[in-house]
Amino acid sequence: MNVGILGATGYTGLELIRLLSKHPYVNIVYLTSRSFDENTISDVYPSLENFCKIPLEKLNLEKAVGLCDLIFNTLPSEYAFKLAKMITGSQKKIIDLGSSFRFDDYEIYKQWYFPKEEVTLYEKFNRIYGLPEIYRDKIQYAQIVGNPGCYPTSVLLGLMPVMKNKLIKDNTIIIDSKSGVSGSGHEPKYGNLFSECNENLKPYNVAKHRHVPEMEQELSKMQEGSVNIVFTPHLVPMTRGILSTIYCKCDINITIEELYIIYKNYYKEEQFIRILKPGLYPSTKDVYGSNFCEIGFEFDKKTNTLIIMSAIDNLVKGASGQAVQNMNILLGIPENTALEIVPVYP
Amino acid sequence: MNVGILGATGYTGLELIRLLSKHPYVNIVYLTSRSFDENTISDVYPSLENFCKIPLEKLNLEKAVGLCDLIFNTLPSEYAFKLAKMITGSQKKIIDLGSSFRFDDYEIYKQWYFPKEEVTLYEKFNRIYGLPEIYRDKIQYAQIVGNPGCYPTSVLLGLMPVMKNKLIKDNTIIIDSKSGVSGSGHEPKYGNLFSECNENLKPYNVAKHRHVPEMEQELSKMQEGSVNIVFTPHLVPMTRGILSTIYCKCDINITIEELYIIYKNYYKEEQFIRILKPGLYPSTKDVYGSNFCEIGFEFDKKTNTLIIMSAIDNLVKGASGQAVQNMNILLGIPENTALEIVPVYP
Amino acid sequence: MNVGILGATGYTGLELIRLLSKHPYVNIVYLTSRSFDENTISDVYPSLENFCKIPLEKLNLEKAVGLCDLIFNTLPSEYAFKLAKMITGSQKKIIDLGSSFRFDDYEIYKQWYFPKEEVTLYEKFNRIYGLPEIYRDKIQYAQIVGNPGCYPTSVLLGLMPVMKNKLIKDNTIIIDSKSGVSGSGHEPKYGNLFSECNENLKPYNVAKHRHVPEMEQELSKMQEGSVNIVFTPHLVPMTRGILSTIYCKCDINITIEELYIIYKNYYKEEQFIRILKPGLYPSTKDVYGSNFCEIGFEFDKKTNTLIIMSAIDNLVKGASGQAVQNMNILLGIPENTALEIVPVYP
Amino acid sequence: MNVGILGATGYTGLELIRLLSKHPYVNIVYLTSRSFDENTISDVYPSLENFCKIPLEKLNLEKAVGLCDLIFNTLPSEYAFKLAKMITGSQKKIIDLGSSFRFDDYEIYKQWYFPKEEVTLYEKFNRIYGLPEIYRDKIQYAQIVGNPGCYPTSVLLGLMPVMKNKLIKDNTIIIDSKSGVSGSGHEPKYGNLFSECNENLKPYNVAKHRHVPEMEQELSKMQEGSVNIVFTPHLVPMTRGILSTIYCKCDINITIEELYIIYKNYYKEEQFIRILKPGLYPSTKDVYGSNFCEIGFEFDKKTNTLIIMSAIDNLVKGASGQAVQNMNILLGIPENTALEIVPVYP
Repeated sequence: MNVGILGATGYTGLELIRLLSKHPYVNIVYLTSRSFDENTISDVYPSLENFCKIPLEKLNLEKAVGLCDLIFNTLPSEYAFKLAKMITGSQKKIIDLGSSFRFDDYEIYKQWYFPKEEVTLYEKFNRIYGLPEIYRDKIQYAQIVGNPGCYPTSVLLGLMPVMKNKLIKDNTIIIDSKSGVSGSGHEPKYGNLFSECNENLKPYNVAKHRHVPEMEQELSKMQEGSVNIVFTPHLVPMTRGILSTIYCKCDINITIEELYIIYKNYYKEEQFIRILKPGLYPSTKDVYGSNFCEIGFEFDKKTNTLIIMSAIDNLVKGASGQAVQNMNILLGIPENTALEIVPVYP
Repeated sequence: MNVGILGATGYTGLELIRLLSKHPYVNIVYLTSRSFDENTISDVYPSLENFCKIPLEKLNLEKAVGLCDLIFNTLPSEYAFKLAKMITGSQKKIIDLGSSFRFDDYEIYKQWYFPKEEVTLYEKFNRIYGLPEIYRDKIQYAQIVGNPGCYPTSVLLGLMPVMKNKLIKDNTIIIDSKSGVSGSGHEPKYGNLFSECNENLKPYNVAKHRHVPEMEQELSKMQEGSVNIVFTPHLVPMTRGILSTIYCKCDINITIEELYIIYKNYYKEEQFIRILKPGLYPSTKDVYGSNFCEIGFEFDKKTNTLIIMSAIDNLVKGASGQAVQNMNILLGIPENTALEIVPVYP
Repeated sequence: MNVGILGATGYTGLELIRLLSKHPYVNIVYLTSRSFDENTISDVYPSLENFCKIPLEKLNLEKAVGLCDLIFNTLPSEYAFKLAKMITGSQKKIIDLGSSFRFDDYEIYKQWYFPKEEVTLYEKFNRIYGLPEIYRDKIQYAQIVGNPGCYPTSVLLGLMPVMKNKLIKDNTIIIDSKSGVSGSGHEPKYGNLFSECNENLKPYNVAKHRHVPEMEQELSKMQEGSVNIVFTPHLVPMTRGILSTIYCKCDINITIEELYIIYKNYYKEEQFIRILKPGLYPSTKDVYGSNFCEIGFEFDKKTNTLIIMSAIDNLVKGASGQAVQNMNILLGIPENTALEIVPVYP
Repeated sequence: MNVGILGATGYTGLELIRLLSKHPYVNIVYLTSRSFDENTISDVYPSLENFCKIPLEKLNLEKAVGLCDLIFNTLPSEYAFKLAKMITGSQKKIIDLGSSFRFDDYEIYKQWYFPKEEVTLYEKFNRIYGLPEIYRDKIQYAQIVGNPGCYPTSVLLGLMPVMKNKLIKDNTIIIDSKSGVSGSGHEPKYGNLFSECNENLKPYNVAKHRHVPEMEQELSKMQEGSVNIVFTPHLVPMTRGILSTIYCKCDINITIEELYIIYKNYYKEEQFIRILKPGLYPSTKDVYGSNFCEIGFEFDKKTNTLIIMSAIDNLVKGASGQAVQNMNILLGIPENTALEIVPVYP
């Protein structure tokens, strides 16, 4: 199958190429870049030498649609929406790694993301929120997959078993997330400089990060009711990894052994979810470079508080790995194709 | 004044020497070390060359008490309690950087710390919990100062203004703390190895860290009622720094502008507390190597949740800087003597 | 094929498991550990969950030889030499990741490594120095492969084309190498602690590192004469990676374009060697997690000095990846089996 | 004394403010910034809150000269040269932290730095190369101090004792330097991003870095003859610190004990130079945040090669600390005023 990547020199583009270059059914045929369009991708990232030497081109949507059966889009909504319209009615597919297709309600999308151009058919696109552990059955029939955000992936996977089992008191969810710096992308800006991030830890966008409405949308559906969350992201001096520590109140007293069974059962068919035994906690290095999500928990009896900890590699399960997983579902091939990666440790 | 440091080659001992070597009224006359007692301190830490060349000795409590007017103790309770008895009735002072004298109630201390040897006079010692911003007036008359833990320092300073102003709903405090690796000390163990910590983020001792009863004791006194907290510490790939992100529910809706005024007023006399303007958040690098505590906050209206963020250098305000601050109070000299340090940035 | 790893919980053992668990012809059947023998390997390294759940056992050489067709040994010479005798005359193979079988001359080995037990048949073992790019033809017929050291791998690959082409003046080779901390192993010791290594750079074992005689042995054979080198290793605050910067004098003036052709030709059949175009230099991240060696160079005309820079991942091409490469040669299967790994970047 | 800093929000500007804010004889009265001229300096760097709240202004050379007795300039030559002309004939002083006044020969300067505007009086300015350990006597009478580059400082201090003692063979000096990322400045660019630098080590500007002519100029004067060097700088994943490993050939066999005495004697009056005992090597963390230069060495008898290792904090002794040291000399006050800083370790 012929695929293209729009915005190939960002970190999610690069990670897509790393993963796809080992995929048995995929040919990468089209890569675009705004900043490096006179080079091959391996000029920009010598790590890809031996694996991908495709030239980078300036964006041309027609060419993309013409050449590719499936397009991975990392560009903003002005391109995403155009692309969506262009493929409507065809057999082509889009996996969008931005936020453009993650929302059920266009008004909420607009309110948080201020798209440069309006789109009229938002609710009509044949699209789905691409978290396979929730929507696998629908993903296979979709044309456009809105690949989830990195924080939401870690959070939704951590909360789903207890939300679906109605164990959580309404509106008691507090999420404290910590991310490596690669989550801020490849663009040079002050906040991403080595000397600013190294030996430093800082919260940002406290209680107003744009991943909040995305998480609330999906949690509300799990809960079958409106869910409000508190969310604080932090920037951690490491390149890869997200750890979300999630606090929520339970009505009942529950043991971690019972919780372990609930989680194990809930995810028993999921090959990318690792549930840790009681007393163990996840760490981002345990999943480094891989598509796994590692989940542990603790229960504080004094306050009936459940503490769920969920670790992913933000560039893999939090972005490009999940995108490949979605592609595999679209293709009807084993979901772990090209994703059975042993984490790099240490 | 002649001072000694018991356990001088740990990181808090080293940091005490860094700070005291610039103190105009202090002579360091006695340093002990179990592992390095055939060296001078500058053999172990060449950074101290030019500043301190005192030989390291094996511990001798009698010698310590004989030579020193004030002893900084970093050793466990079996030494701390002996020392306390030895100086009772004298003019000598102890500043204890361990946990031995932090608790009002010996039973709680025992339950969490399992001292090797019992002590009979625990409640009788003339001692005080050494957080100057709370107990300044009592510290000056105490003989023994129980220097606060690193996490409690960051948390109590962050919460005090709102606790004292009765703004927090009972038992809604959730504390998510992140610490640099130097907080785990200088002892070689797997969990402290570079290759294990670098590019890694991991929670530990979730909901059962030994700093919990210390925080609950002090918060209960602030609140004038029993307070239970949820506390999750995390290990961050950096050497120095603690950031505590504290979540609590308010009965009322409050603006961050009002909170800013409450915090500014509460700490208006405090030279080591920095309150950030609304919209700004603390970062550990802003206080690197200094005795400052930087505090910011945000209010989430949807859920009436107050989010307080508090950053310190765990080895300075979280340990040795605070110990020097306490010493200055004991001595009746300006509290910032030897502590007016500009943070090292970047 | 059944393989075992003696010393499986060290970092080279762990990396062998990462690589071998994706190898189509290999079953890992035996893992030993001195410190963790009551656990499975995935208890010690949760990153291996989903990939390897073999129990760790206390070392039993008879069992090892009984179960395994090929043994990867990471233990010191007292075990390596016993093992070598036990398999003599059989079809079994050893790939030794320590220093025990790297030397042609037992006296030189003894002088630098002080083996606990003498061995009598050292020169008689059917063994080879396992750098495939030099000894591929002999490796396939050997019974014991002495897998090269990490520093020597980076250095020998960098120097070979110019040594073989007689471009270097006698005894002018100066090697300045920089290694990530994982090269110091998994054992807890002061020098490996995060707080000691982070934000720090330090030389060690200057001009007396035990990799010197190994490099001099192989360089002397390339040069067909006795070669002495100057070698300074440094510890860099990163987990993985070695960069060797090699300085040597040339008799002649040469352009980097000519050098580029020499290197490209010399390594034209080698799939793990990447020669960079003139003007580009290697970086350790370009080969992170992979078996590649990336080589660049510069020529300083004023002083007729050739500067060669060579980057590897110390745990892959510098240890376990090369061991797997050697195993593939022993097995007569494609040398890149299980080694076509795209580097993890960023 | 009133001082100003032109380019105050770069890292050397920031470090100047950190140091000067504790200087008893200095008032900072003027700070300029191109990018942040609507803020106070503590808005840009909250670490300076409590210490410096001066507004940042757009550059105005007249105002600078009008307000300040001494100007620290971090801006390029088009400003430096103008400034130099403006103060000629006055009592005002300039300490220039760029390259504009480091060269004896304007032609060499031009050839390496391509100044935007020519200057006619370059050789006429009353200026000096500001390495106090060489030029202390001249610095006090100069009007303009060309503060040395960071690499040259580490290299010249390491080589001076053996150059002056004629121990080095002509043209055998090879310098392998490693720098933290703060040396690349505060400007956002790809090469300085956290995700590009972390877990990475890379050489750059091999054999053609612009510090080469500066080092050759000063080494030639030490040697009393023309010196050519080979120089390779590397970028290390740490914020602060330079370690230079210097290789040179000796005519004679010398012991490290003899070298130790030569170095100790040579620097016996120097309070910022630390000579390590034989067998010990410098590390950048030993001088972190301080104005010290730590020097160690080794001698390889087989090849008569002297290996000198020299560590500094690139922002202190390599830039702003040295600038303050030069200012102290100009003022005729103790050279260590405001510079007796204990390194921050760990």
